[in-house]
Amino acid sequence: MSELGLGDHLIVDLYEVTMLEAYLARGMNELASFELFVRRLPETRRFLLAAGLEQALSFLESFRLSPDELADLSRVHPLSPPVARRLSDLRFSGDVDAVPEGTVMFAGEPIIRVTARLSEAQIVETRLLNIIHFQTLIASKAARAVLAAAGRPLIDFGLRRAHGGEAGVLAARAAYLAGFAGTSDVRAGADLGIPIFGTMAHSFIQAHDEEAAAFADFASVHGARVALLIDTYDTEAGARKVVELAHSLAGQGAAFRAVRLDSGDLAEHARRVRRILDEGGLRDVQIVASSGLDEHAIAALVASGAPIDRFATGTKVVTSADAPYLDCAYKLVEYAGRPRWKRAEGKQTWPGRKQVWRTRNAAGVLVSDCLAPVSETVKGATPLLEPVMRAGRRLGPRRPLEQIRSAALAEVRGLPEGVRSLEPGPRFPVRVSERLAIRSPDPNQGPRR
Amino acid sequence: MSELGLGDHLIVDLYEVTMLEAYLARGMNELASFELFVRRLPETRRFLLAAGLEQALSFLESFRLSPDELADLSRVHPLSPPVARRLSDLRFSGDVDAVPEGTVMFAGEPIIRVTARLSEAQIVETRLLNIIHFQTLIASKAARAVLAAAGRPLIDFGLRRAHGGEAGVLAARAAYLAGFAGTSDVRAGADLGIPIFGTMAHSFIQAHDEEAAAFADFASVHGARVALLIDTYDTEAGARKVVELAHSLAGQGAAFRAVRLDSGDLAEHARRVRRILDEGGLRDVQIVASSGLDEHAIAALVASGAPIDRFATGTKVVTSADAPYLDCAYKLVEYAGRPRWKRAEGKQTWPGRKQVWRTRNAAGVLVSDCLAPVSETVKGATPLLEPVMRAGRRLGPRRPLEQIRSAALAEVRGLPEGVRSLEPGPRFPVRVSERLAIRSPDPNQGPRR
Repeated sequence: MSELGLGDHLIVDLYEVTMLEAYLARGMNELASFELFVRRLPETRRFLLAAGLEQALSFLESFRLSPDELADLSRVHPLSPPVARRLSDLRFSGDVDAVPEGTVMFAGEPIIRVTARLSEAQIVETRLLNIIHFQTLIASKAARAVLAAAGRPLIDFGLRRAHGGEAGVLAARAAYLAGFAGTSDVRAGADLGIPIFGTMAHSFIQAHDEEAAAFADFASVHGARVALLIDTYDTEAGARKVVELAHSLAGQGAAFRAVRLDSGDLAEHARRVRRILDEGGLRDVQIVASSGLDEHAIAALVASGAPIDRFATGTKVVTSADAPYLDCAYKLVEYAGRPRWKRAEGKQTWPGRKQVWRTRNAAGVLVSDCLAPVSETVKGATPLLEPVMRAGRRLGPRRPLEQIRSAALAEVRGLPEGVRSLEPGPRFPVRVSERLAIRSPDPNQGPRR
Repeated sequence: MSELGLGDHLIVDLYEVTMLEAYLARGMNELASFELFVRRLPETRRFLLAAGLEQALSFLESFRLSPDELADLSRVHPLSPPVARRLSDLRFSGDVDAVPEGTVMFAGEPIIRVTARLSEAQIVETRLLNIIHFQTLIASKAARAVLAAAGRPLIDFGLRRAHGGEAGVLAARAAYLAGFAGTSDVRAGADLGIPIFGTMAHSFIQAHDEEAAAFADFASVHGARVALLIDTYDTEAGARKVVELAHSLAGQGAAFRAVRLDSGDLAEHARRVRRILDEGGLRDVQIVASSGLDEHAIAALVASGAPIDRFATGTKVVTSADAPYLDCAYKLVEYAGRPRWKRAEGKQTWPGRKQVWRTRNAAGVLVSDCLAPVSETVKGATPLLEPVMRAGRRLGPRRPLEQIRSAALAEVRGLPEGVRSLEPGPRFPVRVSERLAIRSPDPNQGPRR
């Protein structure tokens, strides 16, 4: 299994190293707790879906600067021999508490908490943020597409415009986790067990002198598995060629699995193509739509009653195009047994290690969240963060992706209707425990949200 | 040198494989030409800066499905023995013509043209787009930040919120290529020779009981190289502590290189901090500003006359946040000696292999571009696409990144003032040669832009 760059430990901000040098020189290496959270949701997000923990734990568990990496580092940032030795010995031997992947989360709520010697907890900051941020970003976007599709399967076709190859694979994972049915990305299929889908590009049609010949060639090789792309020249003419081919091949209906529409007015084309297919006896041939789709386009197509059976999304999901980043941070909340916080304008944090307590009603619908110090118990509520790593080792086996996906789907189903809406609206209320507010040394200048 | 996932050949859309199976089965493997171009620029882009060719050529030159990759592929997509054999033997032995990295480009202009046997030219589509798209996206965004900074150095701090680790490294490259001074990303420094920069995080200050002690600790380890982050609690108070520390350490000014501001009204803080530093005799200490900066925020800070010496950008540049993707495509333009094109609504292409001819005035300023068939010569103009690979081997040595960066800076300087503007405006005119228009089989339904 490809490790997707998780084995590269120089993917790190230089300041993690310069801080480490200072910590080692000053003998500062007590226990530190950092919490990773999203400060504010993008305006177009009502909730987040936590994702990336699996890769984050793999990264932590295998953290080790190889001799080559140390040599590379020394070349661009000369290290003193004691620091080089310490870096060479450095492993992650700390504890991690986290919410399970696929958990619905809101602003200010810790997704993951790292408690370790300061050197260990600090050096992993950059990559940990990099891993959790991206998958959480994409899962949160993909969950909206899943809501919009109202039960119709969604496929991820975004690899080509994902931000690099690793982004393509991790986006496929995040989208699947959020409820997608599969991806076009072979690596994601091979490594992560995600169902893969593929049809043909326009180039396949164009390489043939006749569109009908292209369809026939593809069908002769791939048989009933094929989905034919019918919009290269004229969509409805393409549909009629599919009907003719189906008849010439088998004299009956079910020769092809699907046709794909990739341009123009998808609803209108889908209606016309459906009619052509039905009249041609191809009632079982599905219609797949792609072409710049996001949750709003999908919702509009579904609302229009367009006879589209499946949607393929691409760029807009794998780049989370309307909100391509989350305002996330990895903040020191405790060091050497004392709560720590930051007052920088607009970026204040709550001090101390925290737990998120979630309350649901009898029907399982989410009612409220409460952010509290870890020492506090909120009655009638469930704590979200749970131990996942102790002394640098995972607790329990890896969670199968299928299981995370089912849990995520259930989580989103358990959201109040307003929060499931695709439109912006009031924020879900995250209460802050009084004890947490009291812990701020100066309530007048204390953390605000 | 890390190969950044370029050695992973299963980062590919499944349809490249299904098409290949059909091509092989039907014996279709004549010479094909594909062109990679951007259909339309985002509204907030006036020009593109081509980037990623170096990684694209490495990918093509080393293209080879390893036995492990073939086994992985067969597991998720069963292959017939002949197809498996062909895939195992498949190398890229074709030709590539491309514009040099750092060239200014506009919509519709080919950035790279691949001419190879159909199977080879097709199988590389996904990853080639993935590589060229992302770096071109980021270089084009970063070039705007460079314009806005008006000569002040820019540093990339975006790794943590880049879309994966590979994206962080490639974004650092693209930003440097566009004129940035460096990055925080150690891997980008080690592999690509990009200058790396690092200071400290808020956690460093917070881990100390006193901010002044944190400054003193950092200074004692890093000496004059340090840049101190002064906004954790109160920015101006932080600046005064820097002055005190400088005096206590040396009795004179130049103990520190810089202070960093990372929150609040950066212009106002910069003015106050500058005054405090100057009055404290620290005239040589620079002010670095970060915190959600993009080209517009930088331009506003520069216009306000804020005494900021350097800017650090992050998320908004490495995700190209206002336009996180380009509408790019890799389209078949010729197969078996015949021009090919696509008429799908809104996605029409010009048939045949094309060249971009650029005209400049006597002062070297870009005047117009003309898109023409490769057979045509446009008088007084310079062709942009040049041979870079023949029969699968690079022509000439790798171009040093420094040289690409200088060329890119000169390219942007050579843009008409309007095109260098950060605001949206009229599109730079790309003329289409008459001969190209005539080649469309049916001018009434022919390609339009």
